[in-house]
Amino acid sequence: MPLTAALRRVTAEPVRAPHPLPGFARSTVDGYAVRAADTYGASEGLPGYLTVTGAVRMGAAPDVTVTAGSAVSMPTGGAIPPGADAVVMIEYTAEAMPGTIEVVRPVAPGEGVVRADEDAAEGQQIIPNGCVLRPQDLAMLAAAGVTTVTVHARPVVTIFSTGDEVVPPDTQVLSPGQVRDATASALAALVADAGGEPVQGGIVSDDPGALERALRAALPASDVIVISAGSSVGTRDETANAVATLGPPGVWCHGLAIKPGKPTLLAECGAGPDRAGLDGPAGTGAPGVPVIGLPGNPRSALVVFRLIGMPLIRLVGGCAAPPPEPSTRATLSRDLASATGRLDVVQVKVSGGVATPLFGASALLSVLTEADGYIVIPEEATGLDAGTEVEVTLYA
Amino acid sequence: MPLTAALRRVTAEPVRAPHPLPGFARSTVDGYAVRAADTYGASEGLPGYLTVTGAVRMGAAPDVTVTAGSAVSMPTGGAIPPGADAVVMIEYTAEAMPGTIEVVRPVAPGEGVVRADEDAAEGQQIIPNGCVLRPQDLAMLAAAGVTTVTVHARPVVTIFSTGDEVVPPDTQVLSPGQVRDATASALAALVADAGGEPVQGGIVSDDPGALERALRAALPASDVIVISAGSSVGTRDETANAVATLGPPGVWCHGLAIKPGKPTLLAECGAGPDRAGLDGPAGTGAPGVPVIGLPGNPRSALVVFRLIGMPLIRLVGGCAAPPPEPSTRATLSRDLASATGRLDVVQVKVSGGVATPLFGASALLSVLTEADGYIVIPEEATGLDAGTEVEVTLYA
Repeated sequence: MPLTAALRRVTAEPVRAPHPLPGFARSTVDGYAVRAADTYGASEGLPGYLTVTGAVRMGAAPDVTVTAGSAVSMPTGGAIPPGADAVVMIEYTAEAMPGTIEVVRPVAPGEGVVRADEDAAEGQQIIPNGCVLRPQDLAMLAAAGVTTVTVHARPVVTIFSTGDEVVPPDTQVLSPGQVRDATASALAALVADAGGEPVQGGIVSDDPGALERALRAALPASDVIVISAGSSVGTRDETANAVATLGPPGVWCHGLAIKPGKPTLLAECGAGPDRAGLDGPAGTGAPGVPVIGLPGNPRSALVVFRLIGMPLIRLVGGCAAPPPEPSTRATLSRDLASATGRLDVVQVKVSGGVATPLFGASALLSVLTEADGYIVIPEEATGLDAGTEVEVTLYA
Repeated sequence: MPLTAALRRVTAEPVRAPHPLPGFARSTVDGYAVRAADTYGASEGLPGYLTVTGAVRMGAAPDVTVTAGSAVSMPTGGAIPPGADAVVMIEYTAEAMPGTIEVVRPVAPGEGVVRADEDAAEGQQIIPNGCVLRPQDLAMLAAAGVTTVTVHARPVVTIFSTGDEVVPPDTQVLSPGQVRDATASALAALVADAGGEPVQGGIVSDDPGALERALRAALPASDVIVISAGSSVGTRDETANAVATLGPPGVWCHGLAIKPGKPTLLAECGAGPDRAGLDGPAGTGAPGVPVIGLPGNPRSALVVFRLIGMPLIRLVGGCAAPPPEPSTRATLSRDLASATGRLDVVQVKVSGGVATPLFGASALLSVLTEADGYIVIPEEATGLDAGTEVEVTLYA
């Protein structure tokens, strides 16, 4: 990938410096390159005197050597000339007479100088494997002359919506009982945020054969499949049945101790020797494609996908450590009940250090759009008291 | 902008619901639509009996009315039939005989039901102006059938590099004294992160006329101009001189009380009546283009651009409130000195709740690539003691 398109891509191998960086000893100040020993004992009262024998120009090799009793004029960033081991800042010098400066402060060897390999030695790792490339990483790669970088392909994530009530978002007039597909648009955004490439598989009718056919067709070209299921009991079972036909290892779990999000299905399908170019652990053939069946309520679906789907996509995309998420500490405005053994995700508004929970049926999207973030009540808790300090994960 | 391309774009007007959402009263559970009054007093010991007169199908209008003593079978998300004011969960019912259910728990009016306008009333604002669109905002827009959204154009940010020592990143072999342009690649990434559209203006030689010509040519097509200056005193002055020729209001300040980043220049250029299509406050003509002159050291440049350039680009892009940044609280591992009256930005690694400062010349990029984030020592402080709890802004 060219550097110009590599922001937030995940490196697929470590990058090493092809040569020392910056590559030559540089001045960190405007001043004079000197032999440090020539400045020892210099003070305002008893300055040292040095003969200026030349000047270094930016971007050019020094054409003069610093010898005992001499100094060479230096711009910040200029190459230290041979013989010099320090740079005295211009502020601590004055022109005594044409061609001679006085130095009023001593410098130690190395002062005012960046070593030729101080940013990186030749062969030193400058970017690790599995790294999500940040702006400053691109700077380092550019400095090293590394203008293309080997990155993981974005995982292809195929998104299906099911439910006979679900119609495309551009449907202008709804018949009674119909709702527009809100989940697919948001899932595509969350997939992109996690470094994946979303592919819209469209709306599949609740006819079980239709879902099975759609999933089977998507399997070879997908790294992950996400299905936002119909929310009624019957359609949930149909998703599980269709997924179960796709081949081993099959359904891992159907139902999670999380609210909202209980009817979530997790599966792995289509493992075996016939997926071209993919290999699992030795002897096991290609790994399967992770399949996530989400609840039918948009809000439940998006909450669960954030907690489970996004980390999964990062993993599939080769990301060694997920990037940090915005968060803040806040004081809970009121008591929150929660059942032991169940993880609760509560949407909150945050203002002046106070987190105010937002309530409403899990079918309501407005709870999510009004929220600044969410708090998680862990499985072992029976609730949180008003005034508790909570960690709010903020929506960016 | 189509919804599919609107993630993180900034709305240029509020969006209102074109009709009530969800648009019809929906069931939040699988169960039976009833008249709540028919269930009052029902218990395990004394169930109420109701005649099942029909079933609602997903996505279809109800074809039956609920009358006293009757119930209609409901899937989650189905449309509530006329006459019903509540839905009793299937868990609290049992089939007493074919066509008759017993109800063992009373429901209140509204229980198990989302009102037709509970997510949004007709005309209600669902997305504010100046909002950076998040995944859940796209869900809400899709649900409302709003598939295109009016957003601010991305501010065009032209990036120049100056300095006779600076060569393009793809230069394979450097002459002594030359460095590759590291700053421009990272600035482009930071511009994109702030919602801007980076345009690479390239490397301009230290010849003052060249920079002036390049800036003048870029001015009409730029919303913001960023110049990473040569770092020596002479080239800094040349940037200021070139910027000063671009027209009023001119240079605001040259030098900031911040470390690293002291030689930063802030200006506004080219204001007046002749910039087509732009208008400032009444009678003032078009506003000028903000110009930021950054220090020549890549690390100083990137630190200052994060603090000043990115918020400026968000403002120019119409963003009412910047999105939250990742951060964490940590304990400082050692004393940090700082001069009063100067804001210090210190790069840190964070591990196990401890922030360890990274030091090194401001020319070193490795300090930035090794950092997990940074802390800011405010102007009024004279330093921070080891053990102080600090807020670390994390790089994402």
